[in-house]
Amino acid sequence: MKNYKPKNRLTPKAYIDGILDGDRVILSRAITIIESNLESDKILAKEIVQNILPNSGNSIRIGITGVPGVGKSTFIEVFGLHLVKKGHKVAILSIDPTSQRSRGSILGDKTRMEELAVLQEAYIRPSASGDTLGGVSNKTGETMLLCEAAGYDVILIETVGVGQSETAVHGMTDFFLLLMLAGAGDELQGIKKGIMEMADMVVINKADGDNITMSKLAKRQYQNALHLFPAAESGWSPVVSTASAIKNIGIAKVWDEILKFKTLVDHNGYFIKNRKHQQIKWMYNNINEELKQLFYNSKDIKKELSILEKDVIASEISPVKAAQQIIEKFKKSF
Amino acid sequence: MKNYKPKNRLTPKAYIDGILDGDRVILSRAITIIESNLESDKILAKEIVQNILPNSGNSIRIGITGVPGVGKSTFIEVFGLHLVKKGHKVAILSIDPTSQRSRGSILGDKTRMEELAVLQEAYIRPSASGDTLGGVSNKTGETMLLCEAAGYDVILIETVGVGQSETAVHGMTDFFLLLMLAGAGDELQGIKKGIMEMADMVVINKADGDNITMSKLAKRQYQNALHLFPAAESGWSPVVSTASAIKNIGIAKVWDEILKFKTLVDHNGYFIKNRKHQQIKWMYNNINEELKQLFYNSKDIKKELSILEKDVIASEISPVKAAQQIIEKFKKSF
Repeated sequence: MKNYKPKNRLTPKAYIDGILDGDRVILSRAITIIESNLESDKILAKEIVQNILPNSGNSIRIGITGVPGVGKSTFIEVFGLHLVKKGHKVAILSIDPTSQRSRGSILGDKTRMEELAVLQEAYIRPSASGDTLGGVSNKTGETMLLCEAAGYDVILIETVGVGQSETAVHGMTDFFLLLMLAGAGDELQGIKKGIMEMADMVVINKADGDNITMSKLAKRQYQNALHLFPAAESGWSPVVSTASAIKNIGIAKVWDEILKFKTLVDHNGYFIKNRKHQQIKWMYNNINEELKQLFYNSKDIKKELSILEKDVIASEISPVKAAQQIIEKFKKSF
Repeated sequence: MKNYKPKNRLTPKAYIDGILDGDRVILSRAITIIESNLESDKILAKEIVQNILPNSGNSIRIGITGVPGVGKSTFIEVFGLHLVKKGHKVAILSIDPTSQRSRGSILGDKTRMEELAVLQEAYIRPSASGDTLGGVSNKTGETMLLCEAAGYDVILIETVGVGQSETAVHGMTDFFLLLMLAGAGDELQGIKKGIMEMADMVVINKADGDNITMSKLAKRQYQNALHLFPAAESGWSPVVSTASAIKNIGIAKVWDEILKFKTLVDHNGYFIKNRKHQQIKWMYNNINEELKQLFYNSKDIKKELSILEKDVIASEISPVKAAQQIIEKFKKSF
């Protein structure tokens, strides 16, 4: 890789003011800084986030997942257009694990939602998650805060539904939407059970034409399957519905259900409780990550570890004692 | 709980000499010290383990799991008697997650294998895993080392097959044996797929009388299922066989297969490689655990965390920045 130097950066104030003014160009440039791994950008990113923080949070955060082929892009475009028509400002953040290697996939994202992408009320951004799940939480999470501060009141976070990022996204959203297809018999295939359990709503997409009967059958099957899961802490019973994004059928119902959910969780206190819980968990995940880095990035520790590894293999020291010994050394290194 | 004071302890040397002499009473008392949570016992335990370490490792370590009702106790008793007849010294460590609360279950363990329990060549011990998976690795792991130093050359570590301790046991054994029953149709139910994937051998127990035909069918089904998993790094292809522990059928074959496995992995170098890998992993798990304890047990950190939690909830500081801030404080606390 070539030695990369960032293009001219603005002052922190310029970013903060721009975001709060809803300036999309500034917002995009600020997100680029959040995604950057340069030390100077990291400091800048922290200052930006810290200052927009009081203006964040005024949104409903929706995670959307589904396996490739389920028609996610079309669904999100039609759903997004519906929301804009209802007077909302919608930010769409896509986490595509494959996009880390092939830039093509990111460009694909940009051109997918043509009708939505041109609207001032919609902001579409592929989210670079970096190499780690911590990356999803931190980078996509902070991007979300910036979008909220810029006035977007519906945040859609899209994942591919095959990897592990769903858990991270579930941990930062209020409502989790799972898109499915009516299949031939093995309705529950292709998506992990753990993902099913997180769903507040399952939408069976492509329920049109010849597919309608099968979709209705699938709907019943999912309803039965969801009954097997323990009741959610939110007090919400997951809903299953059918839709055809391409024919704009069943889209309004999705938003109606989300509003019902919002009313319920506002009323029973779960909305705030869950948001607080997510914030705290986000902090602890970061602490544990930073703690490990502090330890394992230390030169002395690295050197000692390679010695201890040899001694442990040679049965000269027990793994338990070796661990204790290096922790003692770590304490003295400050 | 009453204030507990340990009964008179021996000198470290007395434990070490006793273990190396194969003294079962001393061995039992030393294991009790390993399982103790008293600070003075922890120091004593470390000294014992450190000194018997060069004499540990000369065994084959076998993990045995299966759901309740599969006939695990009978299988282990008959298998153990077979091994003793072959001239081996067998140690059996049972990890029973339920035994942490009800002492009854531990007593149950003791009386289960009546024929085996009276033999000098067999040592049966329920293993207190404590509350954590780390507990399984450390306490059962160190108990295993002590048994090896006392001359036991076959270690059987038994788990219930329903919880998470299987992964910990897999991480400390050479060979993983899964006991199953021929069921009515849903052969693969009741045991988690992740456990199946770890198995080096699946034994369908209770293959006697009316059960024989169904057991043979189940055998074929498991063989097919195991083919779906990726090849193991050991180079060993998992074996499926039928057995009836109660009628002593198919038991010799289990040991024969384990010996075949041992010959293979001795020859291709996997045995040593895997042992080394396990030791190193054990050390790192301990380091990460100790590191967390060092951090979270600090009084200043606890105080600061409760303040930061409030600030994060109030959106006065971002979770990412809060984490960084407390790590800085932690560094300065030494």
